[in-house]
Amino acid sequence: MEIKSYKKDAEYSYTLGAFPTIELLKTRPEEVLEVYVHSTFTDVKTIEELTKPYGIPVLCQDKTIHKLSDKENCFVIGVLKKYQDTLRADQSHVVLVNPGNMGNMGTIIRTAIGFGIKNLSIISPGVDVFHPKTIRASMGALFRINCQYFPSFEAYEAAYPEHEVFCFMLNAEQQLTVENCPKPKLFSLVFGNEATGLEDSFLEKGTSIIIPQSEEVDSLNITIAAGIGMYMFTH
Amino acid sequence: MEIKSYKKDAEYSYTLGAFPTIELLKTRPEEVLEVYVHSTFTDVKTIEELTKPYGIPVLCQDKTIHKLSDKENCFVIGVLKKYQDTLRADQSHVVLVNPGNMGNMGTIIRTAIGFGIKNLSIISPGVDVFHPKTIRASMGALFRINCQYFPSFEAYEAAYPEHEVFCFMLNAEQQLTVENCPKPKLFSLVFGNEATGLEDSFLEKGTSIIIPQSEEVDSLNITIAAGIGMYMFTH
Repeated sequence: MEIKSYKKDAEYSYTLGAFPTIELLKTRPEEVLEVYVHSTFTDVKTIEELTKPYGIPVLCQDKTIHKLSDKENCFVIGVLKKYQDTLRADQSHVVLVNPGNMGNMGTIIRTAIGFGIKNLSIISPGVDVFHPKTIRASMGALFRINCQYFPSFEAYEAAYPEHEVFCFMLNAEQQLTVENCPKPKLFSLVFGNEATGLEDSFLEKGTSIIIPQSEEVDSLNITIAAGIGMYMFTH
Repeated sequence: MEIKSYKKDAEYSYTLGAFPTIELLKTRPEEVLEVYVHSTFTDVKTIEELTKPYGIPVLCQDKTIHKLSDKENCFVIGVLKKYQDTLRADQSHVVLVNPGNMGNMGTIIRTAIGFGIKNLSIISPGVDVFHPKTIRASMGALFRINCQYFPSFEAYEAAYPEHEVFCFMLNAEQQLTVENCPKPKLFSLVFGNEATGLEDSFLEKGTSIIIPQSEEVDSLNITIAAGIGMYMFTH
């Protein structure tokens, strides 16, 4: 196949680096079209053990790797067909409303998998979960999460009416403390855009919640707020 | 003065953007040499109210702003003299051992101030806390923290022997849970380099601690681990 720089409307995407490519091969081998390795890469054996059972071609093409990655330490690239997931109704979710930064979204996915949350709802418009930057920031954790886009929060809510909704907002009604963290069986943790947060209409959706913080900062970074929220709700 | 691109050994640095510049003017006005505003910036009044009492010049020079910032939404730049702090012996600390990423360090500083931790020890070698990228990632919270570099962890430890030390490590002896979080009066939370973590010798320094996480990820991102650690120790 002809390899082009990634575009949002392309049917395939790339894992840049050995670690996310190995994660891809371990978790979604059926979506992998081919793997490129650099001529100086020393651990081709690990890649071949993972690709062989599925007949995935492993190609040594330094030029393709240089074309797709601007980092000098990228020695392996996987090519994957984009796929569509459906969120599990019997598991808890993270909901990102209009996420604007691919690095942040990847970090949140990595943290979610770290705390056993395996379903991510993205409310459109939002950045592209299949962009190589998101995949890289997630360290390949993207392939372990079920991810689904929804046109609006209302559409998401209607599809999963059993979930208890918690909206992280600076003007929230309830503080999230070690003593009072809710322990629902099924929850949706909702976070807004990194610049604008959740708009006030979310005060009416489920419980609004804030991580207590000093007035000396404007807010916590979205990835930090999401990390603390996910840690507290899963421990 | 002649304005040059930032260099690590320069005597001054820059705040890129209105928000960090206002933070600088509010917290460290005595270190500010001058402020540049873009001809299209609409809130010069706020800047002038903060600069006037200290006789800080406010200059309208679009060329200088374009030279120092590669972002299109930067309309204000502050020029500050670098300063040296000493950590407070009667307050808790965050310790970053060989930090390698300025964005991460800025995010950790912002989170620390968010949770009322106002002292940051950096163990050399480590990235430059005064780099405009660090300042920007901290959203100006850098100016609210006491920051001091030490040549080694031993030198830091010797200077602050009263602090109880907690080292965040993947092979730690103790899990950090909601039930068992230590509540010492004076603590030092120690985090390693984002790629390599803390080396095994830190297992012997105070208490080693890990945030419980799934084996499906290699680790949490350093900013997330630091965020959860700081939240738990201060709440």
